[in-house]
Amino acid sequence: MHETAPTQFVQAGDARVAYRRFGTREAPSLLLLNYFAANMDDWDPRITNGFAATRDVIIFDYPGIGRSTGMTPSTVAAMTQDFVAFCRALDLSGFDIVGFSLGGMIAQQLAFEYPNMVKRIILLGTGPRGGEGMTFTELSVDELDDPVNLLIFAFFTPSDASKAAGRAYLERLKLRAADRDEPVSRQAAIAQLESIREWGAIPSENRFAMLSSIHQPTLIVHGNKDVVVMPINAFLLAEHLPNAQLIMYPDASHGAQSQHANIFLEHARLFLNG
Amino acid sequence: MHETAPTQFVQAGDARVAYRRFGTREAPSLLLLNYFAANMDDWDPRITNGFAATRDVIIFDYPGIGRSTGMTPSTVAAMTQDFVAFCRALDLSGFDIVGFSLGGMIAQQLAFEYPNMVKRIILLGTGPRGGEGMTFTELSVDELDDPVNLLIFAFFTPSDASKAAGRAYLERLKLRAADRDEPVSRQAAIAQLESIREWGAIPSENRFAMLSSIHQPTLIVHGNKDVVVMPINAFLLAEHLPNAQLIMYPDASHGAQSQHANIFLEHARLFLNG
Repeated sequence: MHETAPTQFVQAGDARVAYRRFGTREAPSLLLLNYFAANMDDWDPRITNGFAATRDVIIFDYPGIGRSTGMTPSTVAAMTQDFVAFCRALDLSGFDIVGFSLGGMIAQQLAFEYPNMVKRIILLGTGPRGGEGMTFTELSVDELDDPVNLLIFAFFTPSDASKAAGRAYLERLKLRAADRDEPVSRQAAIAQLESIREWGAIPSENRFAMLSSIHQPTLIVHGNKDVVVMPINAFLLAEHLPNAQLIMYPDASHGAQSQHANIFLEHARLFLNG
Repeated sequence: MHETAPTQFVQAGDARVAYRRFGTREAPSLLLLNYFAANMDDWDPRITNGFAATRDVIIFDYPGIGRSTGMTPSTVAAMTQDFVAFCRALDLSGFDIVGFSLGGMIAQQLAFEYPNMVKRIILLGTGPRGGEGMTFTELSVDELDDPVNLLIFAFFTPSDASKAAGRAYLERLKLRAADRDEPVSRQAAIAQLESIREWGAIPSENRFAMLSSIHQPTLIVHGNKDVVVMPINAFLLAEHLPNAQLIMYPDASHGAQSQHANIFLEHARLFLNG
């Protein structure tokens, strides 16, 4: 389970990648791609353990993040190459992926470039290349100096119910006591922010063209009040991806799947088994 | 079940309203509000029987439609009054409702005016008052002269998969052999079209104000290629209703719930039991 799975390491290209693997080993693998400036300890145990009940769950640190060595690249395309190297090092293919925010951008890029590697895709709080308001001009790595405030502000809404869900979420992040990850360095966060901004820049033509060639069954999950990635981006994904189901939860921001974890896990299970 | 439930009648105000009731009588009631120019035989048996497995399902004809006597009013507000009279005549309250297209407009108006009558709401292929492109200027009652073509064009997309789902849907509509409904008169359709257009007119101020006072848990279901009610309307509902979950299905038009009936019934069950 999330709380106890040992941190393991595998050499992938130039990086020694830290990962944890837990759940139902004989079941299909589900790889989780993390958000901006997050390490393995930032995954919600409610979500990872929920998946692990029926899946072989793999979480990891991108190169240069947490306990992974190597350089954090500054484009989503290069992060995708790193991810492919990691999958090959573990001899994984034909798996399902969950990409959260930045992780969802890598998931799209992977499905676009390596369609045979991935079967089903869950996109959490993310948007298409050149989406709406996705250059994150207001976001600064300085905000990482106060991670608790950042999470409560970015992942939850001002409502009492959402704030309470936020406090429970923060408590869950502490459940893993031993063998914790290393913090994300400022340098790595700066590189990731550059990746996201490059992804978010609106191309001069064929704005959503890559989406039409992503044919995997896809589940898009978003909060209807997401202040990080505007909800319209989930709608744009659902309009342009040929085989995507969209689920949007009420009174929820960037942490919609954690706030609505029970129903999200039910929806995800229906989708993954579908 | 849908195929065999006898048509019954109840006096509600000036109208003698035709209805059918089937399913799990001891379970909570689920009332289905129909779309434009549709009678009881136009409900998809796959959907109604799916609900009936765990619910006391009630379908009916609006006054002036099918086998209901009375006048078809030309505003959604007046249709809502008729619906309230019908519910009172059957001594129903505290039920759940499914509103499809025009029916979803009445569902919203009911929740707004009579919040205590309804517990949970499912909105299929509908939009808010003053939504986007909802004055239906291109729709004419003449199209009702070729109902099969109209259904295939409006409810399904041009893809092979959707067209095949459309043919299966049309076959299911024939499953009820005896005690069929009467066709919808041209005069009634004209009045309904006027209702929809009045609903769709963009108000000069407070465009989506009524939505903020609809607090019932709501499930919004829409096709991502709906050519009748543009998908952005489902997104607008999800943004402005305080407690609404949005589910959008791929490669689907106005008949999304019929094309994706299996997963829709699972999603609806999770929502209704939630």
